[in-house]
Amino acid sequence: MKKLERYFPALSWLKGYSRADLQTDTVASFIATILLIPQSMGYALLAGLPAVTGLYAGIIPSILYAFFGTSRTLAVGPVAVTSMMTATILMPFALPGSEQYAAIAMMLAFLSGVFLILMSLLKMGFLSNLLSHPVISGFISASAILIAVGQFKHLIGVQAHGNNLIELTQSMMRHIQDINLPTVLLSTISILSLILLKRYLTPILSKLGLSEHYAQMLGKAGPVIVVVATTSSVAVFSLDTLGIKIVGDISTSLPSIPFQQFTIDAMIDLLPGAFLISIVGFVGSVSVAQSFAAKRKQDINPNQELVGLGLANLGAAFSASFPVTGGFSRSVVNVSAGAKTPMTGILTGLLMLVTLLFFTPLFYYLPTAVLACSIIISILQLIEFNNLLRLYRFSKQEALGLLATFFVVLFVGMETGIIVGVSLSLLFFLWHTSHPHIAVVGRLPGTEHFRNVKRFDVETDPEVITIRIDENLFFANARVLEDYVLTLVSQHKDMKHLILMCNAVNMIDASALDSLETIDDRLKSAGVMLHFSEIKGPVMDKLKESSLVSNLSGQIFLTQHQAMKTLTKQQAEI
Amino acid sequence: MKKLERYFPALSWLKGYSRADLQTDTVASFIATILLIPQSMGYALLAGLPAVTGLYAGIIPSILYAFFGTSRTLAVGPVAVTSMMTATILMPFALPGSEQYAAIAMMLAFLSGVFLILMSLLKMGFLSNLLSHPVISGFISASAILIAVGQFKHLIGVQAHGNNLIELTQSMMRHIQDINLPTVLLSTISILSLILLKRYLTPILSKLGLSEHYAQMLGKAGPVIVVVATTSSVAVFSLDTLGIKIVGDISTSLPSIPFQQFTIDAMIDLLPGAFLISIVGFVGSVSVAQSFAAKRKQDINPNQELVGLGLANLGAAFSASFPVTGGFSRSVVNVSAGAKTPMTGILTGLLMLVTLLFFTPLFYYLPTAVLACSIIISILQLIEFNNLLRLYRFSKQEALGLLATFFVVLFVGMETGIIVGVSLSLLFFLWHTSHPHIAVVGRLPGTEHFRNVKRFDVETDPEVITIRIDENLFFANARVLEDYVLTLVSQHKDMKHLILMCNAVNMIDASALDSLETIDDRLKSAGVMLHFSEIKGPVMDKLKESSLVSNLSGQIFLTQHQAMKTLTKQQAEI
Repeated sequence: MKKLERYFPALSWLKGYSRADLQTDTVASFIATILLIPQSMGYALLAGLPAVTGLYAGIIPSILYAFFGTSRTLAVGPVAVTSMMTATILMPFALPGSEQYAAIAMMLAFLSGVFLILMSLLKMGFLSNLLSHPVISGFISASAILIAVGQFKHLIGVQAHGNNLIELTQSMMRHIQDINLPTVLLSTISILSLILLKRYLTPILSKLGLSEHYAQMLGKAGPVIVVVATTSSVAVFSLDTLGIKIVGDISTSLPSIPFQQFTIDAMIDLLPGAFLISIVGFVGSVSVAQSFAAKRKQDINPNQELVGLGLANLGAAFSASFPVTGGFSRSVVNVSAGAKTPMTGILTGLLMLVTLLFFTPLFYYLPTAVLACSIIISILQLIEFNNLLRLYRFSKQEALGLLATFFVVLFVGMETGIIVGVSLSLLFFLWHTSHPHIAVVGRLPGTEHFRNVKRFDVETDPEVITIRIDENLFFANARVLEDYVLTLVSQHKDMKHLILMCNAVNMIDASALDSLETIDDRLKSAGVMLHFSEIKGPVMDKLKESSLVSNLSGQIFLTQHQAMKTLTKQQAEI
Repeated sequence: MKKLERYFPALSWLKGYSRADLQTDTVASFIATILLIPQSMGYALLAGLPAVTGLYAGIIPSILYAFFGTSRTLAVGPVAVTSMMTATILMPFALPGSEQYAAIAMMLAFLSGVFLILMSLLKMGFLSNLLSHPVISGFISASAILIAVGQFKHLIGVQAHGNNLIELTQSMMRHIQDINLPTVLLSTISILSLILLKRYLTPILSKLGLSEHYAQMLGKAGPVIVVVATTSSVAVFSLDTLGIKIVGDISTSLPSIPFQQFTIDAMIDLLPGAFLISIVGFVGSVSVAQSFAAKRKQDINPNQELVGLGLANLGAAFSASFPVTGGFSRSVVNVSAGAKTPMTGILTGLLMLVTLLFFTPLFYYLPTAVLACSIIISILQLIEFNNLLRLYRFSKQEALGLLATFFVVLFVGMETGIIVGVSLSLLFFLWHTSHPHIAVVGRLPGTEHFRNVKRFDVETDPEVITIRIDENLFFANARVLEDYVLTLVSQHKDMKHLILMCNAVNMIDASALDSLETIDDRLKSAGVMLHFSEIKGPVMDKLKESSLVSNLSGQIFLTQHQAMKTLTKQQAEI
């Protein structure tokens, strides 16, 4: 049973599922669906797709994740960052709005699903760890700005496309004469209403006597209120005749899948983008899931999350939509609507389907400018300037990594930005580990403790010298140790014994092993014996399998104190 | 003075230089020059250039390195691996033997020199550490095979070009009908003579009464003997008329530099190759220099080595030759010829110049097949199969890295091979650090020592739990710790305090810091307090600048014993 639960996590909550749970989840899913509909349509527009695909993306993926994901609260569907990434990944391949574009979006979701499931099978989830927090922070902030600028075209009713800030603004400037004043007016009113509702709706509802919980929940309905108000205004006053763009007819037939577009060549071209969107989506989703799980002392299994998100993306592909992942704002909506179990996700999916089949005419007059306004308002919260300042105080190098990612994403493109960011983090880390802290140590008089000779007044012996290496020994610093020892030997002509104190060495790889053997050989030829002390258990287990131990000129001591006692005594006897 | 010596290391040996030193160095340089001439010409052929460029490459670079390098014994000039790399890097740009090819070779040396000096100025020498020993080993073994196969065409007198084993053999098969039997015969005799001389010359000389030292030294003269014997045979019996290829006319005028070929576009195309050849050349050279220096308790400064090798390559570029570096076999020749100081390098360079000006007619009848034979014999020693077996026993993962590099170099190409190898080492390292050893620890009864609960019979407290992390905390494992703690909390519902024991943590980066703050927040919301114990000095210095410490729910204890004592007492009092 435990094993089955591992591959089918829904069993763990389904087995205790009660009628009362179903009632709460049903109410929650009604609220969540209403709140998610405008958001999902907005993200579809952001991805360069018809608004209706946002609804498609909310059905099957949401249901599949509910069965196969390990989070009890995560809501899966289109989210801002992956939708934006979809747009920039697809841009070189087809024109937004074209049928081919929609087909490639599906393919991207398909490949992303395949990647996620492959990563799970190959236990490669750790690859997502390559995205360090500064890189993610720079990426998200820059993406938020790109999204906001990209949506701005809807606010003024012009066309614009581009992969980075320069391309976007240039493209917008070229179409600036198409600006539509009624749209600008509508956008201004919408933005102001959204800001005011966001700030004052909850306090007003509280004052009107609603309980804290409901006031909080309905306080999130600002976008729904603005959507309803503007849609009815457009419908009543035929504002669309003034040039305000509306969502228009939404096909109520279920989507058909253009299999003929799925060629191998097109798939290969999409691979880097699909990989990137999978990793970014996975990292974002898992961190949201973890933060909700922690509050409830629940557990998230990242490897199973890969399966859940992978299947959700395959589901998105086969329902003619675009890449999905777990989102923070979706999940907050879910939680504050009162979701108890993943059943809410299943019911929300089914209600989306009902909406799609029967209620799409309600969205006919919905102005796209209003969807764009609500996206801009929610996305701008993601920009993290405080984070940069905090980081700068902690590590200037990592702050540089954040800034580099930020500016490259903004002015070159998202993919290049991520590559630059990841390369810089790796480089900084390697720089750090390849400049390890190595100290010559001596004994604190009267104790068994050994400390850095530069910081403490310690006892040393010109013939028996000990160095402590505060780093793992591996290829990035193997030669550094060789250099260090070589310099040390050239400076201490009286040295007869060198002890390497390894209490902070958690790992020794083959390069470091070679270096240690080289060091031993060199010391031998210089008449110095090499010893080790305080090697950790797992490291010693590995060393035993090497020729270093059998060829070693000196000895291996359990403790540094013992090493020093034995060797100074030996020297005294000579 | 010390500072001047740092930038101009020759001062350190020049100031004590005596007439006796000069005598020894002069004798050594005569011997070294004679031994190096055929080698240098062979490497020029290997690089796809006229034999004479090998002599060019032995003049100015050797002199410049003597002044600016820090090794007392390293000999700089053309070496096997960089010559082979030159050939494969240049292949896509021009036909070997053409004037353009020679011009691009100079440009490659120029760019390589610029890279090396830039790396020194930017203190980026640590980048060379990216080449782990298994990657270098795989690369060298595969290159040796490629070189041997590539030289085989000279042995049978046919044309062949290619970047990898498949291309080389295919190209050779296409020209197989051009096979020249007299050349095959000459090659067979040369190979056999080289093998026999290599094995028996020293013992025979010893038996003839020569001292060990001279027998060793003259024992290396095998190639010179074969060169002299075959050259005279060809001259006397006009064997070149039978189709045996000879070195032929060597221009005695000093080289002119085709500046018009040095376009910016061509330079940009060469950058990746130049970078690779710099790094590989530098790594090889430094390790040779270090192994010689260690025996003499001398010191090598890797950063100054970058300057020395960089200037040597600029020198190579401006003397119309190709990339150079410090070589093992060159240096052995130098040392066994009795070189005392880098003056030998200067004198060898001058003698090469004299040879070039006055003695090139002597090489007119030298058969190229014989040069190829001597390269094959010396190169095959570089193949390291034992290394693979040894590595396999130590680490299967790293052995896989070696094999991947080996096969990709052999069947795809050198550059791709290096990239694959470096990526794999990084990936394996990240995999390792992102799966850190984390243990729940308890107290060994009656002591102040804390050990893994899985390995020792220790005292624990269900309300105060301690985990020890045996790894640096950084982006690659930040989320792993989050997962671990989340799972731990979900399994220990009674937990009130969690202590992180950090005695093996040498570094905490911003990602890990964020994770620790997240962990603290999550634990707070789950009613658990987070504490730290045994944080190292340098790590604590950094943490003090962060908000983690000020916001921390718990305390920071100097020792684990103190932490446990304080917290269990607190719990008992509640």
